[in-house]
Amino acid sequence: MSELNLQVVLADRPKGFPDISDFAFKEMPMPKPGEGEVLLKTLYMSVDPYMRGRMNEGPSYARGVEIGEVMMGGTVGEVVVSNDASLKLGDVVQAQVGWQTYGVAKGSSVRKIDADLAPVSTALGVLGMPGLTAYFGLLDVGQVREGDTVVVSGAAGAVGSVVGQIAKIKGCKVVGIAGSETKVSYLVDVLGFDGAFNYKTTSDYRGALKELCPEGIDVYFDNVGGEISDAVFPLLNQHGRIAVCGQISQYNLEKPELGPRIMGQFIGKRLRMRGFIVSDFADQYTPALETLSGWIRTGKIQYREDIWEGLKMAPTAFIDMLKGGNIGKRLVKLA
Amino acid sequence: MSELNLQVVLADRPKGFPDISDFAFKEMPMPKPGEGEVLLKTLYMSVDPYMRGRMNEGPSYARGVEIGEVMMGGTVGEVVVSNDASLKLGDVVQAQVGWQTYGVAKGSSVRKIDADLAPVSTALGVLGMPGLTAYFGLLDVGQVREGDTVVVSGAAGAVGSVVGQIAKIKGCKVVGIAGSETKVSYLVDVLGFDGAFNYKTTSDYRGALKELCPEGIDVYFDNVGGEISDAVFPLLNQHGRIAVCGQISQYNLEKPELGPRIMGQFIGKRLRMRGFIVSDFADQYTPALETLSGWIRTGKIQYREDIWEGLKMAPTAFIDMLKGGNIGKRLVKLA
Repeated sequence: MSELNLQVVLADRPKGFPDISDFAFKEMPMPKPGEGEVLLKTLYMSVDPYMRGRMNEGPSYARGVEIGEVMMGGTVGEVVVSNDASLKLGDVVQAQVGWQTYGVAKGSSVRKIDADLAPVSTALGVLGMPGLTAYFGLLDVGQVREGDTVVVSGAAGAVGSVVGQIAKIKGCKVVGIAGSETKVSYLVDVLGFDGAFNYKTTSDYRGALKELCPEGIDVYFDNVGGEISDAVFPLLNQHGRIAVCGQISQYNLEKPELGPRIMGQFIGKRLRMRGFIVSDFADQYTPALETLSGWIRTGKIQYREDIWEGLKMAPTAFIDMLKGGNIGKRLVKLA
Repeated sequence: MSELNLQVVLADRPKGFPDISDFAFKEMPMPKPGEGEVLLKTLYMSVDPYMRGRMNEGPSYARGVEIGEVMMGGTVGEVVVSNDASLKLGDVVQAQVGWQTYGVAKGSSVRKIDADLAPVSTALGVLGMPGLTAYFGLLDVGQVREGDTVVVSGAAGAVGSVVGQIAKIKGCKVVGIAGSETKVSYLVDVLGFDGAFNYKTTSDYRGALKELCPEGIDVYFDNVGGEISDAVFPLLNQHGRIAVCGQISQYNLEKPELGPRIMGQFIGKRLRMRGFIVSDFADQYTPALETLSGWIRTGKIQYREDIWEGLKMAPTAFIDMLKGGNIGKRLVKLA
């Protein structure tokens, strides 16, 4: 194999919102898998909000990407060389090789995908990290119960859209917050949310929420933070739960913003807030994916993919996603 | 009984810090207990930070005190008339009749105190609401484990001083934050805290905490909030827990203050924060009080009472306590 490996690397650490110039393209020799490793040809690359954090310097829950290093991220790839007896040529797997046309992974670190169950791209979306994040975040972290009123921010994204549908399956009332009329109508008319509003055209978030949730809010699944969370907190009911999944409104600020202090509300209302990372639940992925697959098969969960084509589109697809350009799971498909 | 009942009533709702003029004294006829009720002669009255919230209008987790109404609060009283077969004259009970020399309570709502076990005043302190708050807040809400580093704010108060000692019993390292040199030395030299600092003479709270907790903070038991909490959050370790018990720094603000947003820290560090009210644990009071009594008997928990005398001193004792004047449990003893 004399082909080259094309990579998207981090060229600079963004100040505030990432710019296309923070990325660069690089041609590298084809990597060679060692013992127990496989060479994967990338079919799909994931772009996710959490990647913005990895572009920063300094401690995070995961190591950041170094300047000149390939952008990290989840991928779906086809095995083209295998030094792992459990994987054969042509197998399609979910891996984490980042934004490059080829990548090497340990055989033991990848998850084989059954293409008969669902399109392989879903291993990066509804049947992958975002779907699992919704599942564990709502059921385990959010401790959702039948009859709860659930509010989800970033509701039309890869995680939020699944959160709302699982909440409906569990007998909850669900209200979504999203950033366009198209998203709002997708949530209500297609996914069956009980209500939603467009935060970009609403000035009084709290008023909008109060109208949609006159009975208050029991579970807040937060992907966004900032002023949206400020509006949710006063409406939380006794024993309300907050699952902190993401804070996309804060990722691109040049300096941290101030907000109303929230701790005082925790006492009288006995609130519980918990942040989480989906990999904390890795030992429960298999049954969760079976459950999610079942819900997809029976039409209880619908999903949308928003697929861009070509490695070179990855930075733009990512930046646009951070601005809320996507409905459902944004992916980059390689040729 | 032709004596009068002297009361402290709420005269006005405080704007910001309560003033002595927000209270008034009132002479009322002696109340008469009905069927199943007892008349109690007040021996001790409690003054606690949470009472500040009850002086405000509007919804709280408990009904506020109305203008002209007697100030609410925990009391220790002697049964002087009994219409409840389970209570006899001379019994000493913990009740909730508020700031008055006599009060009527349902026999079923009071807790009989065994004066042989400890001074009856402790039923308002280490063997009462504050002690139980420390116990459940640290063990249940804070989920403290051996080897944890625990930071407690308001550390020299009725709750904080017990929190720190229970944490020591459980094999933790304990650091306290308090508002005077006397308090700091009481925490370290008398109660056995591993460290403490005086926030009134320290400008860099975070630096002080970092020096005292180079290994980070696992459990934060918060009675204070505000800038003290701002300093604690960045030092919380992975899987850190925050038990929100009080926010005394915020109770007397004329308008809510802004602070750094904290939700972003929850994700990468998987933090858990929970607010609580001790009465949520009412069904477990009896075994908890037995445990606390045992620790007191064996000298593992020490306590201090800061006793003022006379009903008329109650407002001043309360206001001074809100300003941090107390070490240990502040009480008002009636003649």
